[in-house]
Amino acid sequence: MSVTVYFAAGRLLWPEYEAHLPEALREAGIDATIRHGAPDPAAVDYIVFAPGGDITDFSPFVNCKAVLNLWAGVEKIVGNPTLTQPLARMVDPGLTEGMVEYVVGHVLRHHLGMDAHILGQDGVWRNEVLPPIARERPVAVLGLGALGQAAAQALAALNFPVMGWSRSAKTVRGMDCHSGEAGLARVLGKAEIVVLLLPLTPDTTNLMDAGRLALMPEGAFIVNPGRGALIDDDALLAALDTGRIGHATLDVFRTEPLPPDHPFWAHPRVTVTPHIAADTRAVTAARVVAENIRRGEAGEPFLHLVDRARGY
Amino acid sequence: MSVTVYFAAGRLLWPEYEAHLPEALREAGIDATIRHGAPDPAAVDYIVFAPGGDITDFSPFVNCKAVLNLWAGVEKIVGNPTLTQPLARMVDPGLTEGMVEYVVGHVLRHHLGMDAHILGQDGVWRNEVLPPIARERPVAVLGLGALGQAAAQALAALNFPVMGWSRSAKTVRGMDCHSGEAGLARVLGKAEIVVLLLPLTPDTTNLMDAGRLALMPEGAFIVNPGRGALIDDDALLAALDTGRIGHATLDVFRTEPLPPDHPFWAHPRVTVTPHIAADTRAVTAARVVAENIRRGEAGEPFLHLVDRARGY
Repeated sequence: MSVTVYFAAGRLLWPEYEAHLPEALREAGIDATIRHGAPDPAAVDYIVFAPGGDITDFSPFVNCKAVLNLWAGVEKIVGNPTLTQPLARMVDPGLTEGMVEYVVGHVLRHHLGMDAHILGQDGVWRNEVLPPIARERPVAVLGLGALGQAAAQALAALNFPVMGWSRSAKTVRGMDCHSGEAGLARVLGKAEIVVLLLPLTPDTTNLMDAGRLALMPEGAFIVNPGRGALIDDDALLAALDTGRIGHATLDVFRTEPLPPDHPFWAHPRVTVTPHIAADTRAVTAARVVAENIRRGEAGEPFLHLVDRARGY
Repeated sequence: MSVTVYFAAGRLLWPEYEAHLPEALREAGIDATIRHGAPDPAAVDYIVFAPGGDITDFSPFVNCKAVLNLWAGVEKIVGNPTLTQPLARMVDPGLTEGMVEYVVGHVLRHHLGMDAHILGQDGVWRNEVLPPIARERPVAVLGLGALGQAAAQALAALNFPVMGWSRSAKTVRGMDCHSGEAGLARVLGKAEIVVLLLPLTPDTTNLMDAGRLALMPEGAFIVNPGRGALIDDDALLAALDTGRIGHATLDVFRTEPLPPDHPFWAHPRVTVTPHIAADTRAVTAARVVAENIRRGEAGEPFLHLVDRARGY
């Protein structure tokens, strides 16, 4: 019997998945029909979704076995009261790799002081100050999910002393892990570079507020490829103005695209990147979707199922 | 009996070594007297040297058991005909780590296209083009000594497909190694980012000339933290003008400091860094010097001995 998959992730994404999704389903041994537009809701077995997609009311999909999100973040869908079907996040190996590259690249950029060279080619040879090596530069990764762990491990492999922090206690092999409010204060007090890779929940919204920013060492760097609302924008701007925070490299924002008149664009201590740190790669993501459909049909537990109570 | 060590590495370096060298010698169990200025040459057991140091004629040091260089590069001393004593290069773990950080940082900078963001904060949100991930970006490391191998392994750990090249055939575990003229053409034909970490010898001078630059993929990047004269400056400038080479990040030059009127400073496709990629760290280098003196006194072979015929 054929499985009906409703690709409700928006028109823009379909061209990326047009070849990869049917192929991945075939490889997983699934006989599937992929639907677009407005199929008969009762006939839909699985919904492939992304924020900005084609569904706001999930209640008519009474026979739907799972909603498979193409993004790692689910904060725009998890609170939808019509969504009663199991919801799976995307954990895409291509996305993880892209994220690790962004994090390691921008941490090294700040560590090495690259901007002074990139922006200051003035013919003056300044080599008096020997910069510290990585093993002398404490770094923190806030958030120890799949992305945070991968980023932290890549940084540790380059000899950075890495502190990990998560809201509830976690143990990651070879890493100095902290949790809770007291743990956060300890970590921020030492970290010269902080990477934000937390999920956005009511508990993590505005986590980096004026008080927490004030805990960090003078001139510390922030790299945020997580979620925009993890940071209190005004508090960050104030901390950048005084130089308390040396630089912020931000990939995510409360409003995206970031409006052209937002002060982040013009601030000399901010680098805006346009939500490019990590993107789902259709070729690898399609395989994750197909595997979850195979599991659903075989009665096996879904991968990367969202816990509604936690919100991720 | 006490060993006499002549610190002939120049007045500028002494403050860095003043505490670390006596401590390292003590830890190695060596009873040493450290001399400066012009000691009785016949009484000197070991010379600690760096280019620009206090000796041009090594012949009076008739009882000197080894010249211990504080730099990895020995091209300024190896051809000195008065130098008949064994010569050891510096292989400093701190220097290697600094080099790996510089190489990985600048390779990721080019890979991620960071400069467009650092230099172009114009309020325009450009996220249409999904950049490739590291596993889709072939990188080459020319030179497979201690520094080249360490850099290549760190890049491979980030999933870059790394090709290694050395003049004579070498095998490095887990790496696609090439050698010789034909191997160089193969490597340059595929590498989107090339890192130069070769020693400077008559054979490697101007290795990257017009012909070799023309082999590289359109828009390829060059990172040179090795030696300035590995590249033919005029050929590189011509290749940058046409865009054949997309960008060159150069840390080393034929003349250092690079003169303010050198065209590299003003070229929009060149980033000059002032020979900061890797520096000997006194704390770790002093231990290497002390270990070599211990070996000399114990009649064991010296570490990192230079082969005069090869020149490194």
